[in-house]
Amino acid sequence: MAIHDTIPDRIELVEVGPRDGLQNEKVLIETADKLALVGRAIAAGARRIEVTSFVNPRRVPQMADADAVCAGLPERDDVAYIGLVLNARGAERAIATGRIDQLGAVCVATDAFAIANQGQTSDESAEAAMEIVAMAKAAGLSGQVTIAASFGCPFAGRVEEARVIELAARLAAAGPVEIAIADTIGCGNPAQAARLVAGVRQVAPGLPVRVHFHNTRGSGLANVWAAVLAGASVVDASIGGIGGCPFAPGAAGNVASEDVVYMLERAGVATGIDLPEIIAASQWLGGIMGRTLPGMAARAPLFPQAIEGA
Amino acid sequence: MAIHDTIPDRIELVEVGPRDGLQNEKVLIETADKLALVGRAIAAGARRIEVTSFVNPRRVPQMADADAVCAGLPERDDVAYIGLVLNARGAERAIATGRIDQLGAVCVATDAFAIANQGQTSDESAEAAMEIVAMAKAAGLSGQVTIAASFGCPFAGRVEEARVIELAARLAAAGPVEIAIADTIGCGNPAQAARLVAGVRQVAPGLPVRVHFHNTRGSGLANVWAAVLAGASVVDASIGGIGGCPFAPGAAGNVASEDVVYMLERAGVATGIDLPEIIAASQWLGGIMGRTLPGMAARAPLFPQAIEGA
Repeated sequence: MAIHDTIPDRIELVEVGPRDGLQNEKVLIETADKLALVGRAIAAGARRIEVTSFVNPRRVPQMADADAVCAGLPERDDVAYIGLVLNARGAERAIATGRIDQLGAVCVATDAFAIANQGQTSDESAEAAMEIVAMAKAAGLSGQVTIAASFGCPFAGRVEEARVIELAARLAAAGPVEIAIADTIGCGNPAQAARLVAGVRQVAPGLPVRVHFHNTRGSGLANVWAAVLAGASVVDASIGGIGGCPFAPGAAGNVASEDVVYMLERAGVATGIDLPEIIAASQWLGGIMGRTLPGMAARAPLFPQAIEGA
Repeated sequence: MAIHDTIPDRIELVEVGPRDGLQNEKVLIETADKLALVGRAIAAGARRIEVTSFVNPRRVPQMADADAVCAGLPERDDVAYIGLVLNARGAERAIATGRIDQLGAVCVATDAFAIANQGQTSDESAEAAMEIVAMAKAAGLSGQVTIAASFGCPFAGRVEEARVIELAARLAAAGPVEIAIADTIGCGNPAQAARLVAGVRQVAPGLPVRVHFHNTRGSGLANVWAAVLAGASVVDASIGGIGGCPFAPGAAGNVASEDVVYMLERAGVATGIDLPEIIAASQWLGGIMGRTLPGMAARAPLFPQAIEGA
């Protein structure tokens, strides 16, 4: 298989730590700490941040303070705040805060995962995602859609790439700002990442492709690299590499923002993020969480120093 | 920058856990456990294994049992055992064991690191490496050369790619089985990996390129992926991702064999290694070492099951 790819000049990083990163943490994080995390992400240069989700607080207790988080967000014209929603009710709640700029909708690639995660079939999840994008636009906001389990399903196993691409084509018609393919359980590989990105770009020409990887089996950054070379222009990442998935036991977190920034900036791909600042944010977050976070770059010296200044 | 690369059908994995992996472990590992590690690597499919080094035991106490390790190696015609040596005296010791198939020599890309590591300039280290390859061939063995600090130096900082490529061209004349570029301190990025592999291949046509990455800042597997696509045909890795560098504080280990095998096999690149066996070896080694090892794939379920059987 031949790959004909180009290293882009820049990508956009979406900081998903406050939502996807924290969502499955058993210890409830104070709202003030979540807002401090958002503030540190902004200080490091993040301009799109997934700040919370509007879901059933009994199912996701960590996100029960969604309204309080929104009320405390810094007022910044240059930062887009994303709220994850799974249905019309969640979309209404997010819109009502007056502080969310973009609704994040989730379409699941397989029936089994869609039923377990949000009580609907894969097709139904696509319909719901399209409705959410329409609601966002009607409210003067924008919408994004993530195709979960695009690389593999904890219940169904292998996921046909054609299914993911077909869903992407359908979802593109709703007019989201982008389509994302997500490796929800961290089982993907870089060849698959390159193929899926290329496939989505083909059926949705002109629409940006976002990628969302978990580093469960160590391939997260390789998948980011392959996806970016294949034309993905937006990358999800979480400070410290926090995050997980309730349906993927043992799953490690999202790719760490600081690791993605290290790799891409050193490879000549601008991210808009300041490396020392995002490393400092990760180290601060490790203190808040009281544990060593999965991200690697924040545990290594910013080293060798001479390279830093060069 | 455009990349025109091909995913190869297969690569060769060199298991470096018994030497580079263990070298800087403070707790001395029993010779029997080292031999069990070699046995497990062979059982998983490894056919080239860096088993020990013949260096000053006062400087590297973990390798003081080099002769005992060699005496205990399984007699296998289909497995090549590599012994690392830094000078003629070490080469003589390795040859005298009668059990080493290949001498591994190290040339360091910068003067500062070469002086700290082996008390000679970079050029002198190249001369020494060429002498070692010649000694190996004269004894009926083969020799390999690794260019250390190819991606950055803890003392000198940035390393000019032209310097690495010039060294590779010079070393190729000695007739090693391959030239390796090593990211000794784990600061490299995938664009650099692709450029260096392409550069070495250009000046040493027909000679295989081996790559050696540490996952210090999370980019290890991305570097492997980029290098393999650029034509590197041999990849160093250590079971569990053990290993480090005394001159790189905080440095994480080599890329983990099980993570490399997971990524490459799933991407369609054969490694000759059985994934469940190498994962089991990593889990066993974690028990021996008494700690959680850096490798990720051995900590995640071999999951989803349906993908395994597909």
